[in-house]
Amino acid sequence: MPDTAFFPRGAGLSLNDVSRLTGCEIGEGTDPDLVVTGIGPLDHAAASDLSFFDNPRYADQLASTRAGCVIVAPKHRHLLPAGLASLVTPQVQRAFAAAGRALHPAALTPQPTYGSTGISPQAAVHPTARLEEDVTVEAFASIGPGVAIGRGTIVASGAVIAANCSVGRNCRIGAQVSLSNALLGDRVILHPGVKIGQDGFGYVPGPAGIEKVVQVGRVIIQDDVEIGANSTIDRGAVRDTVIGEGTKIDNQVQIGHNVTIGRFCIIVAQVGISGSCKIGDGVMIGGQAGISGHVTIGDRAQIAATAGLESDVPPGERWGGIPARPVRQWMREIKVLSNLTKRGRAPKVGEDE
Amino acid sequence: MPDTAFFPRGAGLSLNDVSRLTGCEIGEGTDPDLVVTGIGPLDHAAASDLSFFDNPRYADQLASTRAGCVIVAPKHRHLLPAGLASLVTPQVQRAFAAAGRALHPAALTPQPTYGSTGISPQAAVHPTARLEEDVTVEAFASIGPGVAIGRGTIVASGAVIAANCSVGRNCRIGAQVSLSNALLGDRVILHPGVKIGQDGFGYVPGPAGIEKVVQVGRVIIQDDVEIGANSTIDRGAVRDTVIGEGTKIDNQVQIGHNVTIGRFCIIVAQVGISGSCKIGDGVMIGGQAGISGHVTIGDRAQIAATAGLESDVPPGERWGGIPARPVRQWMREIKVLSNLTKRGRAPKVGEDE
Amino acid sequence: MPDTAFFPRGAGLSLNDVSRLTGCEIGEGTDPDLVVTGIGPLDHAAASDLSFFDNPRYADQLASTRAGCVIVAPKHRHLLPAGLASLVTPQVQRAFAAAGRALHPAALTPQPTYGSTGISPQAAVHPTARLEEDVTVEAFASIGPGVAIGRGTIVASGAVIAANCSVGRNCRIGAQVSLSNALLGDRVILHPGVKIGQDGFGYVPGPAGIEKVVQVGRVIIQDDVEIGANSTIDRGAVRDTVIGEGTKIDNQVQIGHNVTIGRFCIIVAQVGISGSCKIGDGVMIGGQAGISGHVTIGDRAQIAATAGLESDVPPGERWGGIPARPVRQWMREIKVLSNLTKRGRAPKVGEDE
Repeated sequence: MPDTAFFPRGAGLSLNDVSRLTGCEIGEGTDPDLVVTGIGPLDHAAASDLSFFDNPRYADQLASTRAGCVIVAPKHRHLLPAGLASLVTPQVQRAFAAAGRALHPAALTPQPTYGSTGISPQAAVHPTARLEEDVTVEAFASIGPGVAIGRGTIVASGAVIAANCSVGRNCRIGAQVSLSNALLGDRVILHPGVKIGQDGFGYVPGPAGIEKVVQVGRVIIQDDVEIGANSTIDRGAVRDTVIGEGTKIDNQVQIGHNVTIGRFCIIVAQVGISGSCKIGDGVMIGGQAGISGHVTIGDRAQIAATAGLESDVPPGERWGGIPARPVRQWMREIKVLSNLTKRGRAPKVGEDE
Repeated sequence: MPDTAFFPRGAGLSLNDVSRLTGCEIGEGTDPDLVVTGIGPLDHAAASDLSFFDNPRYADQLASTRAGCVIVAPKHRHLLPAGLASLVTPQVQRAFAAAGRALHPAALTPQPTYGSTGISPQAAVHPTARLEEDVTVEAFASIGPGVAIGRGTIVASGAVIAANCSVGRNCRIGAQVSLSNALLGDRVILHPGVKIGQDGFGYVPGPAGIEKVVQVGRVIIQDDVEIGANSTIDRGAVRDTVIGEGTKIDNQVQIGHNVTIGRFCIIVAQVGISGSCKIGDGVMIGGQAGISGHVTIGDRAQIAATAGLESDVPPGERWGGIPARPVRQWMREIKVLSNLTKRGRAPKVGEDE
Repeated sequence: MPDTAFFPRGAGLSLNDVSRLTGCEIGEGTDPDLVVTGIGPLDHAAASDLSFFDNPRYADQLASTRAGCVIVAPKHRHLLPAGLASLVTPQVQRAFAAAGRALHPAALTPQPTYGSTGISPQAAVHPTARLEEDVTVEAFASIGPGVAIGRGTIVASGAVIAANCSVGRNCRIGAQVSLSNALLGDRVILHPGVKIGQDGFGYVPGPAGIEKVVQVGRVIIQDDVEIGANSTIDRGAVRDTVIGEGTKIDNQVQIGHNVTIGRFCIIVAQVGISGSCKIGDGVMIGGQAGISGHVTIGDRAQIAATAGLESDVPPGERWGGIPARPVRQWMREIKVLSNLTKRGRAPKVGEDE
């Protein structure tokens, strides 16, 4: 049951509404006019909440839940306790997610931290910045010269948008974000502390020690990208760093100069992608994986968490380990080493001879 | 010898005071009325400083130290040079730490960055925020509507506390911290750049690409928690993310949605904990370890630095490696592989047949 | 071709100028008075741009480039299309980097985010802070009591410099940087979100749970150090944390208390260096490597990306793997395990007996 201080409830939706929205079937004996106003897990949901069940391990929670209605798969219908309203679909998670978005629309995007909209008198907005109507700039945010911001965008407190950046419509620029040398599309969400557009890490050894390579590229963030807290994306050296449409990036991810990432990728927390990598569409990269410079990852490939990837990955393959190799090979190697060790074979063989 | 510009000295303590405070015995020939005003390492300490010795490797530093007094274990007493004042205890580190806290109390918690206390006229404090007496809010900090802050708390410059958050008493909210959807206990320390309460990373594949799962939980931080610079803690999806009493978290740690961490855990820098993990009391997690989603770690278990943990760990066990396994097994496997390689056995065996 | 909104062009340089600056020879048939005003990659450069070629893989790009002039090695001269101006040198990368610095001098260091210089009336500068002439402090930056800042330094919006810190000349303190208990040399660049000088992570187990060790050291950053976005450097416990002259540190690097790093080191993104490590001069540490506490790394040693280093490394050696060992040994072990697995030998041997 969401805390109404943070997630206020609206008028709610009837189960009929939810059914239409999610494609669920109304369960047997369920009143389609019953209204739910929020979502919750089985063990915490209240009578006004919609919940879901998709793991038999939690059958006892289903039996004792106080939720107003539960979304359930056809194969689990027989586990529903008598009198509990239900919505039925084979795709429980997706239906629950869709209902959650409809019941808590304000939670879909970060809200103003100070509760109000418009340009704060305590913000610094350069006279040459061009803001469309309906832009919010909170206190202590700074908008540099020549910056363009599209309508419906919120710039939170303490964010800095440096000279000549462009931000599209309905974006969310979180608290303490720094943006420079960057162009953003529409509906981009940058969570607090994201840093975009600073120098890439480029040096060459020279007679006078370490010599800097100037970084004169940009960062291009396409529509519907979401980037997690404290992630960093460097601008390109002579090319641009590009994040493709709809790609979702978690917290504390590092993306080096000249990297191009395709559309609808999922990049989990603390991943590091070195300079000049080319990542296709629909790629998934697990948490803490590290990608060496100039690596190409094909469309829909998957890189396991904590992998250290040094070579190109063909489309659709799954790689893992350090250095990364196809997951099947990696798993076999782990097993072989484990078996050798358990049997105490290897050292003995050596000693025998 | 601490730089007095940053760590000013007080009247100091007599060795008698230090002895009472730490349980040390006054060393042979030591004047109990001698006063020390600071702490320092053997090779840098001045006559006004207390130092310590617990590693025979540094016996020469002990022989030549200028420290006013040294804390030493009974077994090392014979290494003390003639005329050097001493305090004796089997628990040197703990005694030195206790003396340090008493001699430098201002260094125990972050101090105001601007030198003064009270509400800065350059801060933004929403009229509906409720601040107890003796709260400091520095310039360019922003306190949203409905926020509650307990007495003795300091909110540093550039911090943003979003609508309806609650912060307990004697907390330290560092520069550029972002806090939303969160409730904090007393004496919580958040170092600069910590981001708490932003969206968890939740998506489901859908017909229209990647669909967002709304995140309507909170972050609960219990009393005496300390969180290092630039760490990130996401709010829960339908549950809360919870950090238990007295747990200490280092810099750049990432904690996903719905994670619950018990009491008095130690989590070292750059650790990543994925969504819905359950971590017991007294757990220690080494630097850069990564924990997969939905993993349970039992009380007092220890996870080695850089581990990649994918499965549950029973209470009290020590695990390490990628993927993580009991440390003893991991160490044996490392040795087996190293032996095989040194002997050049394995490839040869293959070729012989 | 750099975006002139972010990287405006100057009068440019003649190829004669570039030749003198970089030591390149003017190519056959090339007009030494031709002027270039920017840099670009072969496939995007315009007639006003200087480009470079050093990888035969891109010979087709060279054949069709629209660049005004290309820097090329003697051995690749024969690949130049007829009529394309060229500059010839065996050290293509270094020459291109030098030309880039000369053509885009403003891109060498971060520029003011708000476009203007001087002390913003929206900044907070304590009356006891001592700023030399020609210092820029942007809106919402806060400069505490007793702070000293040298001429030519820019403090960006939202940065916080706490009491008594000292910053040298011509430094760049990025947006949302936090600085405390720190002394900086000249020409230091801190990218956005860097946090320096907060408490080291020091605790001892005690009867009342986890007891804090006060941290009364400082952070010393020598001349010409550059530190990437969202990196964190803790102050020392009883010693200082020291970063040596000319060392370059990438984004999201974590450096613990008491660490000393020598001169001209390169430390790539997401590296973690635990407390009290001693790192020599000219050391290179690859991305995501983790170094355990109290480890010593000799001059010019190289640590591979993702390594987990637990023991000392002699000068000049290359180590990698988890736990780290000499790279040659690590590579052999990887090969042995891979061979064993491919042959399906090891399990079979076990089964045979």
